[in-house]
Amino acid sequence: MSFKLGLCQMRVKTDKAVNLAKGEAMIREAAHRGAQVISLPEIFNCPYSGKFFRDYAEDQSGPTVALLSSLAKELSIYLIGGSMPEIAEDLIYNTSFIFDRKGNIIGKHRKIHLFDIDVKEGISMKESDTLSAGDHMTVVDTEYGKIGVAICYDVRFPELIRNMALDGANLVILPAAFTFITGVAHWDLTMRARAVDNQIYFAAVSPARDQDGHYQAYGHSCIVTPWGEFCAKTDFRESIIYGDIDIDYLNSVRDQLPLLQHRRPDIYRRSK
Amino acid sequence: MSFKLGLCQMRVKTDKAVNLAKGEAMIREAAHRGAQVISLPEIFNCPYSGKFFRDYAEDQSGPTVALLSSLAKELSIYLIGGSMPEIAEDLIYNTSFIFDRKGNIIGKHRKIHLFDIDVKEGISMKESDTLSAGDHMTVVDTEYGKIGVAICYDVRFPELIRNMALDGANLVILPAAFTFITGVAHWDLTMRARAVDNQIYFAAVSPARDQDGHYQAYGHSCIVTPWGEFCAKTDFRESIIYGDIDIDYLNSVRDQLPLLQHRRPDIYRRSK
Repeated sequence: MSFKLGLCQMRVKTDKAVNLAKGEAMIREAAHRGAQVISLPEIFNCPYSGKFFRDYAEDQSGPTVALLSSLAKELSIYLIGGSMPEIAEDLIYNTSFIFDRKGNIIGKHRKIHLFDIDVKEGISMKESDTLSAGDHMTVVDTEYGKIGVAICYDVRFPELIRNMALDGANLVILPAAFTFITGVAHWDLTMRARAVDNQIYFAAVSPARDQDGHYQAYGHSCIVTPWGEFCAKTDFRESIIYGDIDIDYLNSVRDQLPLLQHRRPDIYRRSK
Repeated sequence: MSFKLGLCQMRVKTDKAVNLAKGEAMIREAAHRGAQVISLPEIFNCPYSGKFFRDYAEDQSGPTVALLSSLAKELSIYLIGGSMPEIAEDLIYNTSFIFDRKGNIIGKHRKIHLFDIDVKEGISMKESDTLSAGDHMTVVDTEYGKIGVAICYDVRFPELIRNMALDGANLVILPAAFTFITGVAHWDLTMRARAVDNQIYFAAVSPARDQDGHYQAYGHSCIVTPWGEFCAKTDFRESIIYGDIDIDYLNSVRDQLPLLQHRRPDIYRRSK
């Protein structure tokens, strides 16, 4: 049993209408090419900068969710709506809405871990100045099995992805906009490690780099197999990548090297 | 604050006396060159094959521990005795004895996760046919801070290394004899991921490959920085590698990107 996954590495501009049109065009293209599950990148309808989040934020009844829902239904695809600034009770979240083939929302992931860093001679960000953090892990049911969804910095925490695998996720999709510095240092490594440790498919989807934009995303969207190989990968430019998610292959990897069965949770429980 | 770590990638032969002599010579060489903490590889005094383990096994009062203890004392070093088949109450363990500068045993790690795999067209092993599994995580105190010790397949379980970091380990040393197939696929990746995710130094020490031996170890002993870079690395041949373990650098990485502080254990606790 396998299915085709499509990741839309779109260039995000300042104009929301332009972003929605571009996202729609890429989703249509990916569906046309046979992708059954399609994902947009992190913060796809708004420039990646805290100063824009509140102005661009919508709630679940806003136009962005309406568009994504209608596309999922019309094209009969599972759609991971990358992420967008969501407003709820006057708080702003970095949220991924997830749709089934009928356009129903089957999951909503709010980024759990906010990116507050200060890399010397590099980039400084404090997402928690503008964003609130999610409070739950997100794994959705599909006809292809369970799919986990996390956002960008969430991937730095192996516990989260492990728990998704233990809950039965065969594929984790990560809309993510790493910085250039952390991307060069850790992007490939982290995506591959999560795939290999958990013997899952791991897909990361970044915005394309916009040289003139507010934020230089690393790009390099990729799909990694449960054995840690790239079955799809790109550079920093706008493109759609595709990979076959092959659950039989995943199971064969787990049969050969039964990592999840060999765990010793009795020992991992810390005494302090 | 920093100190020099030396990893002895020694070729393990069939003759135990030859192995002890080689281990001693390499430890003396590493100490002579200024290493303050020195490690041997996994199963350094015995061929890596289940059929030898019982015959070669010793208990804590045997000649191998006596030799290692006397070397640690004479050279005034911290010594991680790779690992060796240990016999205790008629059970055999894959055990790493750890010595302080006075030759005292300050830790004893018994390999927790036994390597039972069956890679198609590749290697098949079932360690649990001959070995019993350890039941605890091992982190020892030194004047340089805490050091975690795990053995080979233990590294496949990110929970274990995470718990060492949470217990304060700045450095994890892994005597390990990966197979060639899993080594090519996952050695560099796994060692680097453990270092980056936990922002620790991670050191893996393999036997050298012995083309005529019972087991073809992958080699490629390495030391990885908390940012995921190799500060020491070798190929499959016999050699000693050295790296500076710089705790100030480790702390600067954690100051810039405070991963361990950003964890959300409230969410990682699984409901089922």
